[in-house]
Amino acid sequence: MDGPLGQHIIADLYGVDEEHLKGVPLLSGCLLNAANRCLLTPIGQPVVHVFPGGGLTGFLLLSESHISLHTYPEHHFIGIDLFSCGKGDPMKAIDVFRSALSPDRESISVVARGNELNPESV
Amino acid sequence: MDGPLGQHIIADLYGVDEEHLKGVPLLSGCLLNAANRCLLTPIGQPVVHVFPGGGLTGFLLLSESHISLHTYPEHHFIGIDLFSCGKGDPMKAIDVFRSALSPDRESISVVARGNELNPESV
Repeated sequence: MDGPLGQHIIADLYGVDEEHLKGVPLLSGCLLNAANRCLLTPIGQPVVHVFPGGGLTGFLLLSESHISLHTYPEHHFIGIDLFSCGKGDPMKAIDVFRSALSPDRESISVVARGNELNPESV
Repeated sequence: MDGPLGQHIIADLYGVDEEHLKGVPLLSGCLLNAANRCLLTPIGQPVVHVFPGGGLTGFLLLSESHISLHTYPEHHFIGIDLFSCGKGDPMKAIDVFRSALSPDRESISVVARGNELNPESV
């Protein structure tokens, strides 16, 4: 192998409706739809933990790594990350969240994972 | 609020012993110890999924976000990420993994999360 093992997309979405950020079925559906859109394979169902203030953490294990999200309704903010070592385009996952949540702005970073792997390391 | 909501540490550790990367008790313990070292609060126990080749995915939900890891024993590689909106130093989590796994090299990135939040957004 040479080159990255995968990509880690870090997406911060701002200005999201507070009720959307408390929506367990909505966000569970986004996790599954995001995996599907990127041709990724869920392991089981999304795990969602709801905090007393209404914010939530969601997590979906994938055969190709994971998607997670953390919502802060009081700040109209959701932080998403997707680590994928699959062949599909992981940025398509962010489209799923954009469509469902209609943020008014966003900040996205992409970190190459395992990019120092080379034939000598295996 | 102004400034970041939290920090996301992305750590790639290379040259790790293959058996360590298949070690469910070892890596579950690292997840809990990393949370403890950073004064973070686990929600439940670590979730670990073992793949047929021996690689594994581990995940620990935190009140302050999450820690995940993905191992690739065939590449002697582990990818760790820790998103923390807590007050402790999240880099101390990486010390836990370094001590347990003795990587021969590493690459670490830090992404500020929610750093466009400002008083107008809340």
